Amino acid sequence: MREGVRIGFVPTMGALHEGHRALIRAARLRCAALVVSIFVNPTQFGPREDLAKYPRPIRQDRALCRKEGVDVCFEPTVEAMYPNGFQTMVTLPTIARRWEGEARPHHFSGVATVVTKLFGMVRPHLALFGQKDFQQSVVVRRLVQDLNLGVEIVVCPTVREADGLAMSSRNIYLSPDDRVRATTLYKSLQTGAEAIRNGVVDGEAVRSAMAQVVKKEPAITIDYLAVCDPTTLEPLPTVTGKVVLLGAVRIGPTRLIDNILVVAKQARRKF
Amino acid sequence: MREGVRIGFVPTMGALHEGHRALIRAARLRCAALVVSIFVNPTQFGPREDLAKYPRPIRQDRALCRKEGVDVCFEPTVEAMYPNGFQTMVTLPTIARRWEGEARPHHFSGVATVVTKLFGMVRPHLALFGQKDFQQSVVVRRLVQDLNLGVEIVVCPTVREADGLAMSSRNIYLSPDDRVRATTLYKSLQTGAEAIRNGVVDGEAVRSAMAQVVKKEPAITIDYLAVCDPTTLEPLPTVTGKVVLLGAVRIGPTRLIDNILVVAKQARRKF
Repeated sequence: MREGVRIGFVPTMGALHEGHRALIRAARLRCAALVVSIFVNPTQFGPREDLAKYPRPIRQDRALCRKEGVDVCFEPTVEAMYPNGFQTMVTLPTIARRWEGEARPHHFSGVATVVTKLFGMVRPHLALFGQKDFQQSVVVRRLVQDLNLGVEIVVCPTVREADGLAMSSRNIYLSPDDRVRATTLYKSLQTGAEAIRNGVVDGEAVRSAMAQVVKKEPAITIDYLAVCDPTTLEPLPTVTGKVVLLGAVRIGPTRLIDNILVVAKQARRKF
Repeated sequence: MREGVRIGFVPTMGALHEGHRALIRAARLRCAALVVSIFVNPTQFGPREDLAKYPRPIRQDRALCRKEGVDVCFEPTVEAMYPNGFQTMVTLPTIARRWEGEARPHHFSGVATVVTKLFGMVRPHLALFGQKDFQQSVVVRRLVQDLNLGVEIVVCPTVREADGLAMSSRNIYLSPDDRVRATTLYKSLQTGAEAIRNGVVDGEAVRSAMAQVVKKEPAITIDYLAVCDPTTLEPLPTVTGKVVLLGAVRIGPTRLIDNILVVAKQARRKF
């Protein structure tokens, strides 16, 4: 419980990679006690999604936690989290509507509910999330503010492979060929960021520049590419101030998401 | 915050009456620190309900709190509770569907959300609710369990006027004639309880006995009368064990609710 030492918390679905390790290390530096939860939350998966085959390398995950000095590795069961009669749902209709919410209708309601529950169980002072799931981090910040959960939220930069692909537990689903193609998403976002840094202010022009990069790769389908306000996630017709470039693509059976934060040229001049 | 002393919490919408005073006294006995919130929560009122005219005798309420030794009288503003951009809602689709939820579609979502927020702000060990709003107490218990809010919920018996009418801030809406008629609801519930104590086991027979009492009073319309399981609030075809009798009626422009808990005869024999 909250009395005494400062508690840091990294909620995960396991299959821990370098991105999680960075979150754990950032938490370790900030807190006297560190809790990592490993829970593949069924309510944030859609009926046609990969719940059953989601990787669960629990021994490796525990070893990583041990090595990184995690104090508590919290592994609740589905039955403990959602016992008979469970029914309460936490929803954020506006922020959860677009982007990932469109592709995955009940996803953020599942995320918001499980995060509220885990915060209630762990009672952390601080919780850390990866920037890779950008919309999720916006949802969690809003949730914590709206429900007065009293948890400080820290969002850590996306950790990438040498070729730029954002670390994800789902990258193991990629075939060797698709793994090579997968870097296209990050290249597309970098192209958008470069356009903004070069002074392009028309949101649609930035989006179009990003789309052109992906369209060169016929094996990839665009789910969405967007130039958005990083707090509301509404698309920006005119790029100004801090901007987030969001992307989701499909490569064969696998869906990848990524994002970059950029500060537009005019705004940077002010500093 | 939760460190140190045990904190008791009585959330109210103000217009405090003897029912609230009983909750405050019950809390005072159990806790070292006592918080009463006074907040007329707009999100639990429907568009055609009495939000604007709901009584707000704030000076009298503060005086009552002072007299009863309340440590903190918490009076948040609507703007502080629901600032621009607020959007998170807490819903309990199953329990909130029936009875009051049918008459007031977004009521329990408003209640669940504001209770979650108030618990986050006050961080009580213990929170007290009146049995008069029986469905609300079931919703709050379920909410606390489902979201792991870690607050002990105590439900205190309904406080009644000398003639049996359940205390309510809305009783002041009743005309003198309607005030006399209003006791019919409690009489109806007592008739149901008496039938159960006399061994009637058919739920519909009990319900019908209650309805007959109300139908003798042509100025009163039945909204619902029901014989239910006190945990799920599902209607019971056969009365067994602990039962709640729920009632809601309309007298002119005013809507009244009340309930009685009964233990059925067969179940009592077991003790």
